[in-house]
Amino acid sequence: MALVDEARRGAVLDLTMNAPERLNALSDEMMAALSAALDAAAADPSVKVVTLGGAGRAFCAGHDLRQMQAARQAEDGGAAAFADLFRRCTDLMLKVRDLPQPVIARVHGIAAAAGCQLVATCDMAVAAEDTRFGVNGVNIGLFCSTPMVALTRNVPRKRAFEMLVTGAFLDAPRAAEIGLVNRVVPAAALAAETATLADTVAEKLGSAVRIGKRAFYAQAELPLEAAYAHTGEVMVTNMLDADTAEGIAAFLEKRDPDWRQ
Amino acid sequence: MALVDEARRGAVLDLTMNAPERLNALSDEMMAALSAALDAAAADPSVKVVTLGGAGRAFCAGHDLRQMQAARQAEDGGAAAFADLFRRCTDLMLKVRDLPQPVIARVHGIAAAAGCQLVATCDMAVAAEDTRFGVNGVNIGLFCSTPMVALTRNVPRKRAFEMLVTGAFLDAPRAAEIGLVNRVVPAAALAAETATLADTVAEKLGSAVRIGKRAFYAQAELPLEAAYAHTGEVMVTNMLDADTAEGIAAFLEKRDPDWRQ
Amino acid sequence: MALVDEARRGAVLDLTMNAPERLNALSDEMMAALSAALDAAAADPSVKVVTLGGAGRAFCAGHDLRQMQAARQAEDGGAAAFADLFRRCTDLMLKVRDLPQPVIARVHGIAAAAGCQLVATCDMAVAAEDTRFGVNGVNIGLFCSTPMVALTRNVPRKRAFEMLVTGAFLDAPRAAEIGLVNRVVPAAALAAETATLADTVAEKLGSAVRIGKRAFYAQAELPLEAAYAHTGEVMVTNMLDADTAEGIAAFLEKRDPDWRQ
Repeated sequence: MALVDEARRGAVLDLTMNAPERLNALSDEMMAALSAALDAAAADPSVKVVTLGGAGRAFCAGHDLRQMQAARQAEDGGAAAFADLFRRCTDLMLKVRDLPQPVIARVHGIAAAAGCQLVATCDMAVAAEDTRFGVNGVNIGLFCSTPMVALTRNVPRKRAFEMLVTGAFLDAPRAAEIGLVNRVVPAAALAAETATLADTVAEKLGSAVRIGKRAFYAQAELPLEAAYAHTGEVMVTNMLDADTAEGIAAFLEKRDPDWRQ
Repeated sequence: MALVDEARRGAVLDLTMNAPERLNALSDEMMAALSAALDAAAADPSVKVVTLGGAGRAFCAGHDLRQMQAARQAEDGGAAAFADLFRRCTDLMLKVRDLPQPVIARVHGIAAAAGCQLVATCDMAVAAEDTRFGVNGVNIGLFCSTPMVALTRNVPRKRAFEMLVTGAFLDAPRAAEIGLVNRVVPAAALAAETATLADTVAEKLGSAVRIGKRAFYAQAELPLEAAYAHTGEVMVTNMLDADTAEGIAAFLEKRDPDWRQ
Repeated sequence: MALVDEARRGAVLDLTMNAPERLNALSDEMMAALSAALDAAAADPSVKVVTLGGAGRAFCAGHDLRQMQAARQAEDGGAAAFADLFRRCTDLMLKVRDLPQPVIARVHGIAAAAGCQLVATCDMAVAAEDTRFGVNGVNIGLFCSTPMVALTRNVPRKRAFEMLVTGAFLDAPRAAEIGLVNRVVPAAALAAETATLADTVAEKLGSAVRIGKRAFYAQAELPLEAAYAHTGEVMVTNMLDADTAEGIAAFLEKRDPDWRQ
């Protein structure tokens, strides 16, 4: 069975991490499989939205600690292996951000450490009521420094700091309050509610959503004037898309658009 | 009747977009009228606070789509006209930020697309309970890329992304929860509650509020040390204002200040 | 009696500003005493967490206005003295951020102007139910421009703007909602609840917490890729710590870690 299960439902691609006995830890193999699945999705114009969940009782429990400890046997004590590991993990997170399509986390059970980072990294997240979120590496002496990069770009500063230094877990309603997830649903409704949100996005004009997602993250890191200069150009490009012309015309004529995409 | 209605009440200038039949769309004419009204306010030292509302059943529904579609008749398919449009719209938004006086949005009915951007751009916002907020351009194939610049500087990242890719509208209590508006009031109390907030600000020392507003946005884009270096200089300038000296003296002497402004 | 009272409880250092008759104003002497206490804490490897509170009925009411007014007698009207004052105040705030150990504000009564800045600057904050928070300098003609630097890095933009231009005070539950404090507790439980949070952090591996706190603020001001590059290196350093190796090993072996620190 594949480490990352892929299921298509119309224009929505559901990816599911599938190493339940390891709580879907981000092992070398899991990161490679996720990365490959994302590459394939990026190259497939028929995919308009991706969702990402986990099989078994957890979404993702973070890095694979046994693999990490094994790397200490090297002559350098693991330094090169660790640097390579965090580089690959970062590449995976950036791949989610850079994926042309929106990615929705479908979260349940446990989202810990790099698993919590994955939730923060996804563009949106739907969480089952039973989910617990933590950046708990500090409990074993490994501060969640890379997860913190994604976390602090989603939640207020003092909340993030508290999670990081206490290692405490939040329940799902609290995660929604602080902005880590978009909505909380009964566990039994997780797949259906995530599908509903994905379908809503999949119904939009794909070229507009792609252009918008890219601009979202580009402008977020620019000063205000530069952000406006950039997005102003994006709006012009968007306006010149024939499907957008049709979309606006249809709206003004009170009819459904006839989009090629 | 003017496209932007102006009413003075003491030191408060109430601007009201007045094209109700078009839901106060930001047409070329409306942007020019708003821009002129803001220029006049900026040049008038007797104005200490500006409020901005809309006549009819909407605050502002965004750009004027008919004008935009008409521009497609040009030889370049509208490219130059669109670039010019978004430049003028951005200039208008920056004019609100750069206005020496605080600007309070007085929002009701609908604040959509560039209308929602205008709410996010104002320094503060009071919303009637019936208001619905959306960056809904994606529904017609035009992602709200420029509105997103203002939106993402006001609300948490995942909330902003969801609004942008779903095109869904938020009600006013939800908009307040996520930080898009400061407070929600009954529709019948919108003018009065906005006036109360405006009056509170208008009672402050005008020079201090002006220096503070400018510093607010300047420091927001600086790294911490640079932000402190800049605001430290601002504090010195503020301290050397004779009215500030009087304000502090009056406080220490438990009497009302005798301000020249 | 010392201006800043110091009490040790295990690895936790409790600092208490002790000028209750002046509501613990940040006088020249208070800033010097706080700065010295923080320097001593930074140099003491046995201190793992610092808490900061105030004696009497306030946490801290801000700058010492009488001292500031006295400086106006100088030939330059106080310009050099004011510049020096805000430089020392900024140095104090940066010292809190740069302290290797986490700092938890233990807040009650009043946290006003630079006192509110101090709360925002601490890594975490626990507040008594009776606390009122304000950046109220605008009420006497002195906009809280330096406090705003810390405030705007903790709370949403429109909330911060409103506090700054109205000078209005927030109660503690509201301060928690907007992210200015981590939790609100009954006044009688303030010391105990802060101690509980401090103890939780003090139980962690000190080297990991120190490396994490430093990285927290470093990455916050970097673009995403640079933030990941930096924290990736931090993770490698953290992994190569012998205590971290032991922490992970202990976790995998389901036993308590035997840390040297």
